[in-house]
Amino acid sequence: MRPASNQPTSLYTDHYELTMLQATLHSGAAHRPSVFEAFARRLPDGRRYGVLAGTGRVLAGLEKFRFNDDQLDFLADTNVVNTETIDYLANFKFSGNIYGYAEGEVYFPYSPVLIVEGTFAECCILETYILSVLNHDTAIASAASRMSLAAGQRDCVEMGSRRTHEASAIAAARASVIGGFSATSNLEAGYRYGLKTVGTAAHSFTLVHDSEKDAFTAQIESMGEDTSLLVDTYDVEAGVRAAVEVAGPKLGAIRLDSGDLVEQAHWVRQLLDDLGNTHTRIMVTSDLDEYAISSLRSAPVDAYGVGTRLVTGSGAPTAAMVYKLVSRADDNGEYQSVAKAASGKKSVGGRKFALRQRNSRGVAEAELLGVGQPVDNDGDDRNLLHHFVVDGELADGWTGHDAVTAAAQRHTESIAELPPHAKKLQPGQPVIPTLFIDPHNRG
Amino acid sequence: MRPASNQPTSLYTDHYELTMLQATLHSGAAHRPSVFEAFARRLPDGRRYGVLAGTGRVLAGLEKFRFNDDQLDFLADTNVVNTETIDYLANFKFSGNIYGYAEGEVYFPYSPVLIVEGTFAECCILETYILSVLNHDTAIASAASRMSLAAGQRDCVEMGSRRTHEASAIAAARASVIGGFSATSNLEAGYRYGLKTVGTAAHSFTLVHDSEKDAFTAQIESMGEDTSLLVDTYDVEAGVRAAVEVAGPKLGAIRLDSGDLVEQAHWVRQLLDDLGNTHTRIMVTSDLDEYAISSLRSAPVDAYGVGTRLVTGSGAPTAAMVYKLVSRADDNGEYQSVAKAASGKKSVGGRKFALRQRNSRGVAEAELLGVGQPVDNDGDDRNLLHHFVVDGELADGWTGHDAVTAAAQRHTESIAELPPHAKKLQPGQPVIPTLFIDPHNRG
Repeated sequence: MRPASNQPTSLYTDHYELTMLQATLHSGAAHRPSVFEAFARRLPDGRRYGVLAGTGRVLAGLEKFRFNDDQLDFLADTNVVNTETIDYLANFKFSGNIYGYAEGEVYFPYSPVLIVEGTFAECCILETYILSVLNHDTAIASAASRMSLAAGQRDCVEMGSRRTHEASAIAAARASVIGGFSATSNLEAGYRYGLKTVGTAAHSFTLVHDSEKDAFTAQIESMGEDTSLLVDTYDVEAGVRAAVEVAGPKLGAIRLDSGDLVEQAHWVRQLLDDLGNTHTRIMVTSDLDEYAISSLRSAPVDAYGVGTRLVTGSGAPTAAMVYKLVSRADDNGEYQSVAKAASGKKSVGGRKFALRQRNSRGVAEAELLGVGQPVDNDGDDRNLLHHFVVDGELADGWTGHDAVTAAAQRHTESIAELPPHAKKLQPGQPVIPTLFIDPHNRG
Repeated sequence: MRPASNQPTSLYTDHYELTMLQATLHSGAAHRPSVFEAFARRLPDGRRYGVLAGTGRVLAGLEKFRFNDDQLDFLADTNVVNTETIDYLANFKFSGNIYGYAEGEVYFPYSPVLIVEGTFAECCILETYILSVLNHDTAIASAASRMSLAAGQRDCVEMGSRRTHEASAIAAARASVIGGFSATSNLEAGYRYGLKTVGTAAHSFTLVHDSEKDAFTAQIESMGEDTSLLVDTYDVEAGVRAAVEVAGPKLGAIRLDSGDLVEQAHWVRQLLDDLGNTHTRIMVTSDLDEYAISSLRSAPVDAYGVGTRLVTGSGAPTAAMVYKLVSRADDNGEYQSVAKAASGKKSVGGRKFALRQRNSRGVAEAELLGVGQPVDNDGDDRNLLHHFVVDGELADGWTGHDAVTAAAQRHTESIAELPPHAKKLQPGQPVIPTLFIDPHNRG
C-alpha cells in the first residue's frame, strides 16, 4: 500500500448540500440528531441480486472530507454560502456513527447498505460523496459478479480502464476484484490498492515491428516465455505458428481479440496442442460480457479479459442508490420517523436494522428489515450491519488492500448462501424478498 | 481558476503499455517515429453525430504525465518492468506533436479526433490515459448536446454527480457545459474549472424541520427570495401555496421532482399565476433525458435539472474511441502506413487530415479525411485539425476555464452548420458521410 492521495473529498459535493447547511444553521435544525440511510429502491432491470462495493472508499474518503483555505475562499468568493456556514465548514470533522453492509455483501431493494447518524448538518453534507462512490462501485461489482459466476473457475481480468474516466477506472478495478475478478490491467489500482496487475500486448506492438515474428521475438526475449502473445494482427493461424516457433513449448498464453472467439478457440487449441504447446493458455478479449462469457463456456478458453461492458456496469452503469433522512429528533430530543409523502419515490421512515434470514441449511430466504428496532435472529439468520465509524473514529479493517481481499472472500460466501437461481443470467426478480418488520404497524 | 491537483496521470495506464515499452526498448522499435490516432469506428447506436470533449483535460494531464520515485519504486517492486524501462520512465516527458479536433466540435465515424506523433515509446504509453478521458467526456458531451437541443432556449442544469464516480462527476459537469448546459450542481467543477454552480434543496431539508412552512421560512430568510423551493415533499398544491405565502411574489423558482411532470407543470403554473407569482420559475427534475425533455416542450417549464441519464451518456456511457498506430518509420526513416489485417476491427492506415466539407450556404456535407496528405479545401470547407502540442510544448488556449467557454461556443456553431435532421432525436444514421481521400488508392 502506497500513501493515498491528499485530494480532499469535501467538494465532491452538490451546491445544495451546503446551502441546506446554511439554511439549517439559520433555523437551528442543523443540530438536530438525524439518521440518513443509503439504499436502492430497486435492482437494475432483471437483476436477481446486487453486490455492494465502495464502502471502503467512502470510509477512507471521510478522513479527507475537510475544507482547506483554498476551498473556503472559493465558497466565499462565489457566494455559495455565507460566513457563518464557512466558519462551520472550516472546523468540520464528521463526529457521528456509520453502520452498514460490508463490501462484497449482496443486497436487495431497500437494503440499508449505509446508515449515517449524526447532526443533520454533518450527515447532509456527506450525501453526494457517499452516493457517488456507492453508485459507481456497486454498479461495477454487481456486473463483475455476474461475469465471474458465468466464467466459473476460469480467470476474469479487468481491462476496461480506457473505456471509463481515468479515476473511475481505478475504482472499477477495485470493485471488479471484489466481484470475483482475479486481476486488473490498471497500474494505479495496483499502486493504490495492491491489486495484481497483468497485461499482454496490443496490435500496435506488432505493427511497429517489421514483422510479427520480430515483435514476438522482442517480447519473448524481454519478458520471458511466460508471457501472452497477441496473435490476430495479420492471420491467426500464422500468428499462432509464429508464436510457438519463437517461444517454444513454454509459451504462457496467446490472446485472441477479434472474430468469432468460440470457433477460433476450438481450432487454435487444437493447433497449439498439435504443435506441442498443451500448456499454453488461451485468453480471449473483445466486447465480452456475462452473456458472451457464458456462450464461451464450452470453448477451450482459459481466461477472459473484460473491458467496456464491465466498467459500464453491463447495461446498468449506476446502482440507483439514494440517501434519505429517515429519522430525526425534535426539539424535545425525541426521534421522529420521517419520509416523503407526495406521490412517487416512496421510502420507509425510521432507522433500519437488517438480517439475512436463512433456513436451517443456511440458504437465504429473505432480507428482514426491522424498522426502528432490531429483528429477532432465530439462530440461522445473519446480521448484516457493521459499525464502521464510532463517534467519528474509523474502526479498523474496512479500508486498504486487506479490506479488498476480505470483501472478495465475503462476496463468494454471500453468493454461496443465495438460492441457486440467483446465478441465472436471464432476467428475473430479486431472489429473496425484502420484508419490513415494523412493530408499530403490526397492530 | 484554482491550482490544479498535483496527482500524476502517468499510472492511469494499462500494464501492457509499459511492458510493450520494455519490449520495444529491447528491440529498438521504441525509437521509431510513429503516428497514433484516436477515433471512433462508429457513433453510439442511432446517434446522428457525436460531440468531442476531453481534449483540454488530456492536454492538462499531459503536463502531469511524469513518473515520480514512489511510482517507479512500485513498478520495480512489483516487477512490472525492468530497470532499463524504469530509467526511461524516470526521464519521461512527451516531446512530440499532438493535433486534433477542438473540444465542442462534432465528429463522425473515423474522424481523427486526436493525432499523436512522436517515438513509438512516447505515443504508446499515453494510450490508456488519452482514451479514458476522451471516451468518458465525449460520451457525456454527446448526450448533453441532444438534451440541450431538445430543451431549446430553456436552461439545462447538470445535477448527476451522485450517480457517477466522484471524479467522473467533475469531468461530466465540464463536458455537459461544453454540450450546451448552463450550469452544474458540482462544487468541485466550480472550484476547478470556474463553472457556474447552482442548487435548490432536498426533501431531507423539509423533513428535518417541523413543517414545510418552517423549512421554507428558513430557506427564504437565509438565502433570500430568489431561491428555489422544493414543493413536493407532502402535497404539491399545499407546497406551492406555502412557498408563495412565505416568499411572496418575488420567489425565484419552485422545483418538482416526482409524479407526472407535464400534468403538474400546467396546473402549478396556473396556480402560481393565480397567486400573483407570474415570475416564479418552474424547474423540473426526476430521471430526465432528451426524450423526457422533448415531451415537456409544450409544458410551462423554465429549467431542467438532469442527473442519471446525463452522466451515464443517455444509454451510451462510453464513446467507443480507440487509439491506433497508423504509421511508423522503418529503419531507413521511411514512414509506412500500418493497420491490423485480420478479420474484424478494421482501421485505415496512414496519417489523416480532416476537413468538414460544406456547400456554398455553409451546410456540412461530408467529413473528408485525407490519407497521408491533406485534402484540397474548395473555399467553403473548414479545417478540423488544430496543433495542440508543438515539440512537447502545449500551445495556449486549450485548457482551463476559457477553453470550456470557447468549446461551448464552438459546439453551438458546429451544430448550427449540420443539416437540420441532425437535431432529430429518433434513431438515425450519421448526418454526413465520412469519405476517405486516399491518393494511393485512386488508381
